[in-house]
Amino acid sequence: MTLRGRFGKEMDDRAKAYTASTHFDRRLYKHDIASSIAHVRMLAKQGIIPEKDAELIIMSLISIREEIEQGSFEFKEELEDIHMNIEARLVEKIGEVGAKLHTARSRNDQVATDMRLFTKEAISETVTGIKDLQRALLHVAEDNKRLVMPGYTHMQRAQPVLFAHHLLAYFEMFQRDIERFEQCYQRTDVMPLGSGALAGVTYPIDRDFLAKELGFSKVSTNSMDAVSDRDFVIEYIAAAGLTMMHISRLTEEIIIWSTAEFGFVEIDDAFATGSSIMPQKKNPDVAELARGKTGRVYGHLMSALTTMKSLPLSYDRDMQEDKECLFDAVDTLLSTLEALAPTVATLRVKADRISRAAETDYMLATDIADYLVKKGIPFRQAHTIVSNLVRYATDIGKALHDVDLIDYRRFCPDFENDVKSITLESSLAARNCTGGTAPEEVEKALAAARKTLNGKKD
Amino acid sequence: MTLRGRFGKEMDDRAKAYTASTHFDRRLYKHDIASSIAHVRMLAKQGIIPEKDAELIIMSLISIREEIEQGSFEFKEELEDIHMNIEARLVEKIGEVGAKLHTARSRNDQVATDMRLFTKEAISETVTGIKDLQRALLHVAEDNKRLVMPGYTHMQRAQPVLFAHHLLAYFEMFQRDIERFEQCYQRTDVMPLGSGALAGVTYPIDRDFLAKELGFSKVSTNSMDAVSDRDFVIEYIAAAGLTMMHISRLTEEIIIWSTAEFGFVEIDDAFATGSSIMPQKKNPDVAELARGKTGRVYGHLMSALTTMKSLPLSYDRDMQEDKECLFDAVDTLLSTLEALAPTVATLRVKADRISRAAETDYMLATDIADYLVKKGIPFRQAHTIVSNLVRYATDIGKALHDVDLIDYRRFCPDFENDVKSITLESSLAARNCTGGTAPEEVEKALAAARKTLNGKKD
Amino acid sequence: MTLRGRFGKEMDDRAKAYTASTHFDRRLYKHDIASSIAHVRMLAKQGIIPEKDAELIIMSLISIREEIEQGSFEFKEELEDIHMNIEARLVEKIGEVGAKLHTARSRNDQVATDMRLFTKEAISETVTGIKDLQRALLHVAEDNKRLVMPGYTHMQRAQPVLFAHHLLAYFEMFQRDIERFEQCYQRTDVMPLGSGALAGVTYPIDRDFLAKELGFSKVSTNSMDAVSDRDFVIEYIAAAGLTMMHISRLTEEIIIWSTAEFGFVEIDDAFATGSSIMPQKKNPDVAELARGKTGRVYGHLMSALTTMKSLPLSYDRDMQEDKECLFDAVDTLLSTLEALAPTVATLRVKADRISRAAETDYMLATDIADYLVKKGIPFRQAHTIVSNLVRYATDIGKALHDVDLIDYRRFCPDFENDVKSITLESSLAARNCTGGTAPEEVEKALAAARKTLNGKKD
Amino acid sequence: MTLRGRFGKEMDDRAKAYTASTHFDRRLYKHDIASSIAHVRMLAKQGIIPEKDAELIIMSLISIREEIEQGSFEFKEELEDIHMNIEARLVEKIGEVGAKLHTARSRNDQVATDMRLFTKEAISETVTGIKDLQRALLHVAEDNKRLVMPGYTHMQRAQPVLFAHHLLAYFEMFQRDIERFEQCYQRTDVMPLGSGALAGVTYPIDRDFLAKELGFSKVSTNSMDAVSDRDFVIEYIAAAGLTMMHISRLTEEIIIWSTAEFGFVEIDDAFATGSSIMPQKKNPDVAELARGKTGRVYGHLMSALTTMKSLPLSYDRDMQEDKECLFDAVDTLLSTLEALAPTVATLRVKADRISRAAETDYMLATDIADYLVKKGIPFRQAHTIVSNLVRYATDIGKALHDVDLIDYRRFCPDFENDVKSITLESSLAARNCTGGTAPEEVEKALAAARKTLNGKKD
Repeated sequence: MTLRGRFGKEMDDRAKAYTASTHFDRRLYKHDIASSIAHVRMLAKQGIIPEKDAELIIMSLISIREEIEQGSFEFKEELEDIHMNIEARLVEKIGEVGAKLHTARSRNDQVATDMRLFTKEAISETVTGIKDLQRALLHVAEDNKRLVMPGYTHMQRAQPVLFAHHLLAYFEMFQRDIERFEQCYQRTDVMPLGSGALAGVTYPIDRDFLAKELGFSKVSTNSMDAVSDRDFVIEYIAAAGLTMMHISRLTEEIIIWSTAEFGFVEIDDAFATGSSIMPQKKNPDVAELARGKTGRVYGHLMSALTTMKSLPLSYDRDMQEDKECLFDAVDTLLSTLEALAPTVATLRVKADRISRAAETDYMLATDIADYLVKKGIPFRQAHTIVSNLVRYATDIGKALHDVDLIDYRRFCPDFENDVKSITLESSLAARNCTGGTAPEEVEKALAAARKTLNGKKD
Repeated sequence: MTLRGRFGKEMDDRAKAYTASTHFDRRLYKHDIASSIAHVRMLAKQGIIPEKDAELIIMSLISIREEIEQGSFEFKEELEDIHMNIEARLVEKIGEVGAKLHTARSRNDQVATDMRLFTKEAISETVTGIKDLQRALLHVAEDNKRLVMPGYTHMQRAQPVLFAHHLLAYFEMFQRDIERFEQCYQRTDVMPLGSGALAGVTYPIDRDFLAKELGFSKVSTNSMDAVSDRDFVIEYIAAAGLTMMHISRLTEEIIIWSTAEFGFVEIDDAFATGSSIMPQKKNPDVAELARGKTGRVYGHLMSALTTMKSLPLSYDRDMQEDKECLFDAVDTLLSTLEALAPTVATLRVKADRISRAAETDYMLATDIADYLVKKGIPFRQAHTIVSNLVRYATDIGKALHDVDLIDYRRFCPDFENDVKSITLESSLAARNCTGGTAPEEVEKALAAARKTLNGKKD
Repeated sequence: MTLRGRFGKEMDDRAKAYTASTHFDRRLYKHDIASSIAHVRMLAKQGIIPEKDAELIIMSLISIREEIEQGSFEFKEELEDIHMNIEARLVEKIGEVGAKLHTARSRNDQVATDMRLFTKEAISETVTGIKDLQRALLHVAEDNKRLVMPGYTHMQRAQPVLFAHHLLAYFEMFQRDIERFEQCYQRTDVMPLGSGALAGVTYPIDRDFLAKELGFSKVSTNSMDAVSDRDFVIEYIAAAGLTMMHISRLTEEIIIWSTAEFGFVEIDDAFATGSSIMPQKKNPDVAELARGKTGRVYGHLMSALTTMKSLPLSYDRDMQEDKECLFDAVDTLLSTLEALAPTVATLRVKADRISRAAETDYMLATDIADYLVKKGIPFRQAHTIVSNLVRYATDIGKALHDVDLIDYRRFCPDFENDVKSITLESSLAARNCTGGTAPEEVEKALAAARKTLNGKKD
Repeated sequence: MTLRGRFGKEMDDRAKAYTASTHFDRRLYKHDIASSIAHVRMLAKQGIIPEKDAELIIMSLISIREEIEQGSFEFKEELEDIHMNIEARLVEKIGEVGAKLHTARSRNDQVATDMRLFTKEAISETVTGIKDLQRALLHVAEDNKRLVMPGYTHMQRAQPVLFAHHLLAYFEMFQRDIERFEQCYQRTDVMPLGSGALAGVTYPIDRDFLAKELGFSKVSTNSMDAVSDRDFVIEYIAAAGLTMMHISRLTEEIIIWSTAEFGFVEIDDAFATGSSIMPQKKNPDVAELARGKTGRVYGHLMSALTTMKSLPLSYDRDMQEDKECLFDAVDTLLSTLEALAPTVATLRVKADRISRAAETDYMLATDIADYLVKKGIPFRQAHTIVSNLVRYATDIGKALHDVDLIDYRRFCPDFENDVKSITLESSLAARNCTGGTAPEEVEKALAAARKTLNGKKD
């Protein structure tokens, strides 16, 4: 079986090696066989091939799948790709009947179909993986739901927040990621099979039957677009890039929180590594690798976008480059989620150090300015007054609540005794509008998150 | 008015110049004033500032907007950003009352709100622009709906298709782009205002009122996420990247079709350029620039993703870098759509050259193989037979329909006289399943496209 | 003056706006005029145009340059680009004689020449800027040359190092950057002028004369390559990307060191910013922006690479996209260096906190393992012994030097009293091979750095 | 042998799988063993370990290398990386003596050394591969050195050039690539071994000896930079990205030239592929894949740059991500060069079609304008005159040399009979300054290229 009927000579070995894809697209064997079975079933139903030929082909395809899964199938790189490997084996097993499999289809619509089946599966696993990470975050948030920490902007202590509130910010990010993946799923869930090489096929096929068999909810409506569209690949990788970006932020924080200087969390021994030379070291390698692998997924996104740039219709061989970047993006994201979720779930939160940090550094200054505003002072002036007060306190090395009221009044006569009743607790409690860090709001957010994870949408 | 109350000295000029953003974020003046007006209205409604102060501030903000639009506003780079420029002018105009504007908000939630207002607007314009391009494509397709052209794979002539079918493939791509932008819109349509610097605010604000005033359909549910989320920026640029990729494919084809060698189309003089040195030249510069600008949008995507990588919560100044890449991505995409749509709409389609090209190069070979299959020969064997036949025809320099039947039969005895009735027309007509290039299917697709453009979703 | 002689109509406004580049390439006016002057001088020398015409043109070009520099020149976007703007003004001033300027050249070789002149200049400024940053680093290193700090791997305290040693690591990075820019300079220093549109010109020009006039040390040797080569643009941006990567590492450390938790450095007030809402804040915005702008330069690299992908020879209009990404990469890098150098130079190093941090966390564990090795114990075993010792010390909450010798011996009988003489000082002093952190080595490295900065290569 | 002495429990399987690198870094076995042998030799020479221990270790390392090369070595993913796999096997073979191997080094300097050894080797192979491609180009150029073709700008026929001149433009590009790789080599050729984990080592090692043994010409001068520097990885990938960009331009042209419409070249059957469905197809898959893989290398560049962004000193585990992108960039570039060189060398140049194309489309218009200039007409006016002449000729459907002289004169009275002696040949011959397409210049360029390939620098 060869596609080289019109050629005068064999392909050069270097060209063969360069164009062959079996070593990576063999991964699609399951999807390829599934779509072949559906295809053959349809061909028989439509009377394009005899029913008994179809039965024989299907049985043989099933046994080929078993051979592959049991490791007895011999992949041949010289057969170019997974499709030709399977087809060749089929002909080897059942002869001429097997040569009917490729009726009314082309590798162009076939591979597009396989890729979409693969991507749909990958998206489902990805969503499950993200939820596991959300669950881990929620678990740690719930376990520490009253813990106050310094909220940071510019990595400087800014205003007190609940530790749970901080973690729930990540829950939100990952929820958006899930939404994006679900929408990507919808655009992936369109069947190209039946588009032939580029123009459709000349047989009376039943594409709706095919779609039903293969679990697609729509069929493609332009054959040239169908064989040349890889938007779904790029869209998956773009969504994965955003998820990795969120993960890079979370892991950066875990790494920083694990430093001796912060000491906010300790990574469980089961998720930490040692050093080949420094006996005292305990390193947050899972978090570092997750952060580092962000670049890898970004790279795949650039790769896929660049490869598709300026390709004329319809199929061009450049598009074979869609696979490895997608596969690796999927593997990277799934393995990162798998390793990171338990790393997060088992984090030891050092509540003492965290809450002690929350008590320093004038983090109630905004509340004091707000206090003045409520006395009628325009905010900008209040801001300036408290800035000066803070500067004074810094100079004399005192915390704000240790500064005497009389000194407060030197900066503004409106200060009264009750300014001293501004505390971490009152500060938190006051931020009680939707999305604020007030304990009651965070409690609601935790409940909502729990519901999202357990809800019907799961 | 200064934010430097606690600092001992003025900012160094180099630092000031480096951190200032007025020269690019002034573009947000309209959104900034709109959100300030809504904010002030809410502050008054909630009794946080007096009604009459609110009225004065609002009137003044409106007049500041006019100053800006009339060009009489003096932007000061040293005031750092658009927000402080407007606030400073407000205080200049109405004194102390203006200093109340910044009550119960922070630049962090303010700028996030402005950016979302801007992005929502940009998405709407983008969708309109894409539709214009779709309309141009549809126009040319309808004008040439019976024109047969060679369909290509690997840039080699493959099977005949309708020119309209080819153009409609692009219609599909752009339809997916619209869908993505609309979903991006939904995630952008969430109001961060009221999140304060990071933790919420200590005033009894009414976020639902704010959202309604500003036309947001949702309010954010975690203040830390709200001020540090730029997913919507990245998502816009990613969607723009995909759209530009589609545009790069279309323009690549226009450029190739405009070569002397293809000669399939001619660009209207109004959209072509000449040469500074070669008097005979007519160049497809709009198409080339559109293709070239693809890289620009990809670059902005990389830029935004990289900038956000590994940023700890919540706001970091790195995030100021979200603006220029978004602005330029929006401008690039909108101007490309604007220039490309009429370039496409005015293309002169050289039907003669196209249809002549469709008649050559053995493009009916697949149909002849299918012919044999229908006589009972397995497809792979039919493929080999026709490959040999094509090779023979090439060697003797004949088109397939000029080869004698007796010679056909030397390759396969099943060939009969009716093989000669396979024509471009029969080939097209046979590809009549959903998405195929048969005239009836393309007619349906044109109608569907027209409906999509005119439909309620417009 | 128009290039549209053969066209039947004017260019559409949308196409005109889309293809015009005056708003950004006007920046090349100086280089354009310089290369025009050299060109005209050569034309006269070769007798291609009369000497007196040349004189008139040159004088007029000089006065046009003055008009531009004084702001009285009226740039017209409809004249498409800087070259046509200048040429049109020339003709306006001196009539027909001005129309001789474009003899024996094309915009293709002209713009390539301008871009190379610009890039050569940019490289020189970049190298100067990097040296300024190196000088700042060296200054801080020298001011703190005995200061011991914890050396980190995985952001965990690892082994003591000199603070100066840490800073000098950056000096090395920037030295490699300079080397790269200098090599990029050499490849940029090749003159394309005289290549015409793509094929050379039909006049007896003297390219060596041109090169000498313009300060190029080589002339290009293939006209098609000369007009279509933008390697030097990409190479500049790639080198800038690496420099920004180094800067992002340095600024990340400055940001982390400025946290309350680390407290290793304090940014000078002149290079710090405040908050619009939190009166106590002092933010390291210069460092954050520098870190954030890394993404911007990476993006430009991606942009330039993508734009050039798959462009057929020779000039294509896509290449107009080479300018804005280069200009912005240059501006970004130069402004970052300019703002960062004094930020570094004025850093307040909090020596107390740094040296105190160096005394904790078992950072001498490697030295103790090495101690055992010197007693004859294989390193891997020594590593295990000290690991166990550290674990014991952690459990009982003691520093290693506070653990009793008798306890040491429970882990290994080879421990003797002299193990207690392992100190920070002895640890540092022992690392005295080339590149090690021993004070004598660092002293040498400081001297070498000083020499590099002041050396002939400056 | 474990690095987990201080940990209370085993590593979780998910973390182990996630952090393990054996499956890809095993590729460094040769370099790892080479550097271990040099290291041990040095340790013995310096009296740090006994000579006979060194001999035993070296012999065992050699036999381990044989085990690996013969396929009998059992790689264990749970041993984390190639270094630990080899060390563990060593200890298994020779017991306690093997545990001395890791004296005075760390995995940090070890892996940096291995990576540099690998990269140096990769660069040498890359340069050889590029030269092979240059040789193929030169071969085709020399075989067709008098062949005239249309030179293109904007893909429109512009001016006649020699086909050899066009091919030599690529020779130039690849020559620059070689230069870049050679400079990258120089920066890679610096030995980090002896830098320890980050601070140097406490043993009296001899780094110059090590460098000599391993063939490095320099030793690193700052230990922290040495273990955290991956510039050489990024620089290799950036240079590879530029080379792939050049390849994408060449292959784009090969693909376009292979279309039915251009028909300038035909790919040899040994380097072309067929279609699974269309029996007549002959596809340029090698060229398409080469073009497509450009995106892949760009992606790796983005990946490496992003991963290194913002990493604090010194080693962070993120840096493990340096390997796969480098390995794949090397493999992609080498295999592309290997497949492309013979594809180019065996191209069938269809001289008839090419030279026929050169005779059309007013490509001598520039020469005619130059003709007028030589009669004293300013170039811009000459340009306009010839534009109008071309338009006239187009309208009446004539080639310029078929237009009557009397008609020429209607556009400009300076036309005389000799305007008709402007031919392709005269046009080419006139472009005889350095780098022009005149046959004599191209002959010189061919000779220079031959010399470059055969020169001492080979």
